[in-house]
Order: sequence, then C-alpha cells, then structure tokens
Amino acid sequence: MTQRIITLTTDFGTQDPYVGVMKGVILGITPQVTIVDITHHVPPQDVWTGAYVLNSAVPYFPEKSIHVAVVDPGVGTERRALAVRTERAYYVAPDNGVLSPIYDNEQVLEIVHLTNRTYWLTRVSHTFHGRDVFAPVAAYIARGVPLSALGAPLNLEEVVRLKWPAARVENDGTVRGIVVHVDHFGNIVTNIPASMLEGPAETWEFEVNGHRVRGLRSAYAEVNVGEALALIGSNDTLEFSIREGNAAATWGVRVGDVVYARRVDA
Amino acid sequence: MTQRIITLTTDFGTQDPYVGVMKGVILGITPQVTIVDITHHVPPQDVWTGAYVLNSAVPYFPEKSIHVAVVDPGVGTERRALAVRTERAYYVAPDNGVLSPIYDNEQVLEIVHLTNRTYWLTRVSHTFHGRDVFAPVAAYIARGVPLSALGAPLNLEEVVRLKWPAARVENDGTVRGIVVHVDHFGNIVTNIPASMLEGPAETWEFEVNGHRVRGLRSAYAEVNVGEALALIGSNDTLEFSIREGNAAATWGVRVGDVVYARRVDA
Amino acid sequence: MTQRIITLTTDFGTQDPYVGVMKGVILGITPQVTIVDITHHVPPQDVWTGAYVLNSAVPYFPEKSIHVAVVDPGVGTERRALAVRTERAYYVAPDNGVLSPIYDNEQVLEIVHLTNRTYWLTRVSHTFHGRDVFAPVAAYIARGVPLSALGAPLNLEEVVRLKWPAARVENDGTVRGIVVHVDHFGNIVTNIPASMLEGPAETWEFEVNGHRVRGLRSAYAEVNVGEALALIGSNDTLEFSIREGNAAATWGVRVGDVVYARRVDA
Repeated sequence: MTQRIITLTTDFGTQDPYVGVMKGVILGITPQVTIVDITHHVPPQDVWTGAYVLNSAVPYFPEKSIHVAVVDPGVGTERRALAVRTERAYYVAPDNGVLSPIYDNEQVLEIVHLTNRTYWLTRVSHTFHGRDVFAPVAAYIARGVPLSALGAPLNLEEVVRLKWPAARVENDGTVRGIVVHVDHFGNIVTNIPASMLEGPAETWEFEVNGHRVRGLRSAYAEVNVGEALALIGSNDTLEFSIREGNAAATWGVRVGDVVYARRVDA
Repeated sequence: MTQRIITLTTDFGTQDPYVGVMKGVILGITPQVTIVDITHHVPPQDVWTGAYVLNSAVPYFPEKSIHVAVVDPGVGTERRALAVRTERAYYVAPDNGVLSPIYDNEQVLEIVHLTNRTYWLTRVSHTFHGRDVFAPVAAYIARGVPLSALGAPLNLEEVVRLKWPAARVENDGTVRGIVVHVDHFGNIVTNIPASMLEGPAETWEFEVNGHRVRGLRSAYAEVNVGEALALIGSNDTLEFSIREGNAAATWGVRVGDVVYARRVDA
Repeated sequence: MTQRIITLTTDFGTQDPYVGVMKGVILGITPQVTIVDITHHVPPQDVWTGAYVLNSAVPYFPEKSIHVAVVDPGVGTERRALAVRTERAYYVAPDNGVLSPIYDNEQVLEIVHLTNRTYWLTRVSHTFHGRDVFAPVAAYIARGVPLSALGAPLNLEEVVRLKWPAARVENDGTVRGIVVHVDHFGNIVTNIPASMLEGPAETWEFEVNGHRVRGLRSAYAEVNVGEALALIGSNDTLEFSIREGNAAATWGVRVGDVVYARRVDA
C-alpha cells in the first residue's frame, strides 16, 4: 500500500496541544501516513473560512488524500459528524456546511453519518471531537476501512449545505461579486472568475469599498511599490493588492464586502 | 524497526530557523523518524505552561514515542539536561521541572543526566541546547541507543520537581482549584477534575475572578452565543467558556487564578 | 534511494492554504520525501530576512537536502527562477538575492535558470510560483531529475547577489557591525563573529542604539532577570539579550542598526 496523506484544517491555533494530539491519535492507529497541515488558523468557529481554505487546497493534493476539517461550533450537540468520498478524495468533518464547496465542485460518491463508535476513541469528550472522532476515523480510512463500516449512509440532500455565493453579470454588464478571503499579505480575494473578465485588460475598472482600480494586471511589479492593482490570483479569480503593502488593512476591506467590475472606454 | 515518533514542545516560536534546525539535526542522525510539533508557542521561559502542554499531549501518542521539551531559561548554566524513560515513553528535557507532571503521572523507569558528549553535536553553544544536545540525543534514542549510554543515572529524588497544584475539597464542601491553562479560544482550563463534580449538574455553581456560572453543561451550544458556561473539557477537568467568545479575555482571567465550585440548592 | 528532505522557507504565513498547497504539489510528484518547514513567517517581501534564516538553517540539514526559498516580490515579472547545486545541498528560489549568503558560504557547482515547463504545473499563475514552479521543481529534483534538465545554465556572475554586510575592525580597534536579525525572544543577533571578540571577556564593552553592555557572558543566567547581557549566540556571533525579557523591544532595536564592540580597561 502506498503512503496515504491526511490533511488537517482547523481553527485550533498552534499554541495548545490540540493539533499535536490529533496527530498522535492518527499515528497511533496508522503510522504509515503523511500528515499535512493546511492551516490551524481559521478564525474561531468560522465555518465559511474553513470551507474556503479547504476547497482552495484540495485540488493540489494527490487523489485519495483524506482531508479532515474541524471547525466545529456545534461540537457536543446532536450535529452529525460525516465522512464523505468523492471522485477525488475523502473528507471527515462535522455536518455544518464546511464541506459545501466540495459538494459543489466534486462528484460525491458516498456520505456516511459517523455512528460506529468502534472507530472512535473509547472515551469521547464533549468538546474535542477532532481528537476523539475525526482523527481516529481519518486514520481508519487511511488503513482501508470502507466508509460503509463507519456509519449510516446519507444523501446529499440530507446534509448541511451553505449556498456559496456566485458572482453574476447584471443587466448593464457590471459584474458583481464579493470578497471571499483576505490573505496573510492583505490580498483581497474575490469570487469573480477570470472567465467573467475577458476582453482587453485595460478596459476594466474594479471597485471595492469605494476604492477603484483601473485595468487588470499580470504581476504585482507592474505598479510602483505602494500602488494598488487588480489581477487574476492563484485561485483564478479577481484579487486586489497593494504592491508590497496590505490592501485589506489599508482599505478596511473584509470578507463579504461587495465587489464590482465594469467595462469602461479604453 | 517501526518508524519512531519524536515530538517537540518549545518556546521557540516559528519565525526563526530554530525549530527547522532541530529537525535537520534529528533527520541527519535518524532519517526514518516522524517528527510531530506539539507546540512552539509556549510563552518564553514559561516552564509551567510547557509542562502543562506536554503532559496534556503525551497520553495520545503511541508508546515509546520520544518527547523533547525545550523551555530552558537556564540554558548555558550548570542546570542538568535529562533523558527519562517511563513505562509509556521517552523524554528529553532540561532539568527544570518541565517534566514534573510526567513524574507524577507515569511510572519512571530510568533517568539519566546527559553527560556523554558523544551523542551531542561536536560544538555546543551557550544558548541553543535544543539544537546541540536535546535534538541529537532524541535522535540517538530513536536509533536505539540505551539511556545508560547517554549519561549518569539519577534518582527521582535528585531531579527538579515542581509541585503541581491539586484541587481540594474544603471543610464546607467547596471545591477550590486554580486556572492551569488558557487556550487559543479563550477557554479557561482548571485543575478541578470531573470526579470532584459529581451529582446533579444543575446543583453546581462555579466562580472565577468574581464571575459566577450556574450548572455544568455538556456542550457549548447549550447556551446562547455570547453566554458563559462551565463544562468538563477534553482534559476531563472543569473549564469555563463563552460560546463563540473568549472567556479569558472577557473576564481578565489568567493562569493561577483561583476557581471555586460550590453546591447550591437546585 | 534514501528518503530526501525538502525544506520550505517563505513569507506566506500559516493562515492561508498556500503552504499546504505547496506540500500537496510536492507529495503528488514524490510521495517519499520528508518536508520540513524552516519558517513561513519571513516578513512579507523581506528578501534579506529570508536569506538570513535560510543560511542559518542549512548547515544543520543532511547533505543533498533540497531547500526551497520563496520570498518573491517580483513574482509574475521576468525575474528568473533558479535551481542551484552546491557541494552541500540543492536550492530552488527566485533570482532576487535570497540565496546570496549561500553563494558566499558554499561552493556553487551548478546554477540553472528554470525554463523547462515540463517540470512545472501545467497552468502557471501570475502570483503563486511557490505552487506552480518552485514546489514541482523541488519535487522533481528529489526524484533525481538533474539540474541540466530543468533549464539553461547560468554563471555565478549572472545571478542577483546582495552584498552581505560584514563586520569590520576600525583603526582604533573598535569592531563595527550591524544587527542582522531579531528573534522571537527579542534577542538581537549581530554579524560580529566570535573570532573578532577574543581576549578577556570582561574587557569588552558593546553598544547598540545607545545602550551599552559590559563584558561577554556565557549564559543568560549569569545576570539577574531583567538585566541585559551580551554573549556569543548559536550562530557564533555577538548577540544582545535581556534575561527573560525582550531586548529588541525594550531598546527599540531593528535589523540594520549599527553595533560597536570596544575594548575597555578591565
């Protein structure tokens, strides 16, 4: 059997033992696994950001990787825990919408409600299912346990699914989207795909929070240090940046802010 | 030989090369090892937090894992460096009390004062024994070097042992404990074990820093967003939280603050 | 083939999917590799700090490790991407000077301008060559692809090389250096090597930002908590510290500040 990959996306931070403990649990069940941190700095309880980050990362991992997402404000309640198999990968997460973009973008082959405690730690706390449920289940999947053994099958209609906001073209041709992420550099990532911004790059004008940027650039270095620009980012969507600066902080932009793209005379 | 695990718990942070360097040293001596970060964000020189975090994590790692703890305000002085073997695991750390809860909770089989420079880097700095002593010693243990080769045997009576504070029941039945950790979410972790809080959950009242919380809950979601609650956390001890908030910051609670649990009329 | 090591040094932070994505790309190409984070907290676009951190770390890694450094303000422009082979290791990085101290300290055997898109991801973004170019190239080097296959050869005279500042002895015997790093603890790391500070330790006086410290110490604990000291740090250069405090924050010292060492009457 080749080495399996388990990735972790959580809001646990890195100051506490929580992440290390999840890895200890996984390695105790399946030592021959490579564990990769996506991030542990999802803002606390922010299911949307967890969903965004996970969805951005998974296309770059080998097939059959097992992705664990623990952003879990409902831990300890009756909210379901899930394992999902798609044509690409496996997912283990609470049923709170954190897998919504996965449901949108991948062909879902199997969903189970995790109910078989055989594959959990013996004692299950009220507050740390990352350790007690999600980590061991991921490890058993890596060992080859089929999803059908882990619990009861569910349909895609039965799970929590957040409606992921899509950019749209309005009647006057304006493209209207939103900010979906602000990254470490202060880059402002939108949900407007490159495919909605065709035609001459210099004919576009972009707006977020009252700040306007003219033209679509190809590289940060096309403007001077400290100047703003718009370009197609690594997710293949519109982004705003300030060269060697922090656009989001400078402009006070936050996730959910509305973004416009309009064609102007060149 | 199966793949061995070495864990790292330090106050080094993650901005400098220090942690990567320790891993380079380990992998140079024993490539077939899995290195797991517990945390590198122990507050600088805070031996108590290092001890707390390490002790919380180790029960979840496979047996014979090698746990390295470097919170080392006395680096460069005559403070001893130790390797310890218990019935569960191996430990490599300065002799400053960071292993105190391990001594309390595990059966100690062997302690050695690290004196054999054969198993250190050739040049030993005054400030970075994590790199020069602790990392290579851990790597050699992973390669099978017995503790007896690493230095001179010590008794448990000879090493530094912090008296870990225990909760106690006072004459009037009040349980008195302290805050032992504040986590990334602002959860307030106490040293009052679940076993001291038996009986009907609604008959307990808890107090920390003048803030009182009634009843023992099972899940964050049993209260409204922004409301405080008390529950048994993942360490099986009393914790205070504010649902989707930060209890420690809101109440100004810090490690060492006194906590009371009292029975009231239901 | 033995397990190869790939290290990562970036300014990406750890809140976004970027680092995880690079690891996914690497593992998709070469699963049998050990990936080690040096740091992802180089200040954004700070090529000098990236160079410093990388150069401090690489001597402690096994030979033939592959070190990837992505601090890349010129991403998306015509700045070259490089792979470098030295007598010690392999390097993959933008051609912006981040490898300067490597050129100074190691014997360079081969440099190539990365031009062969066979070893990149199929689609290359304008903003994330860490994912699209540097990660896959490092993974192919780990698989044994020779540098000559990756692009066109370059001479050391053709690449960007920052002049790394050296300490010097002035006419009156004063040693003049600069601050090259401030670490997580607030330790102030200088470029004055131990070899310039010979003779009786108590005869030296050190100055940075108007703050003077007398004598060269061997351990933090030689002074009282809260007191300043100077010692030879783990890079074998002069450092300033405040015991269990933060010297850089207390004194307002930053990278580039001038440092003096003078002999005084003992």
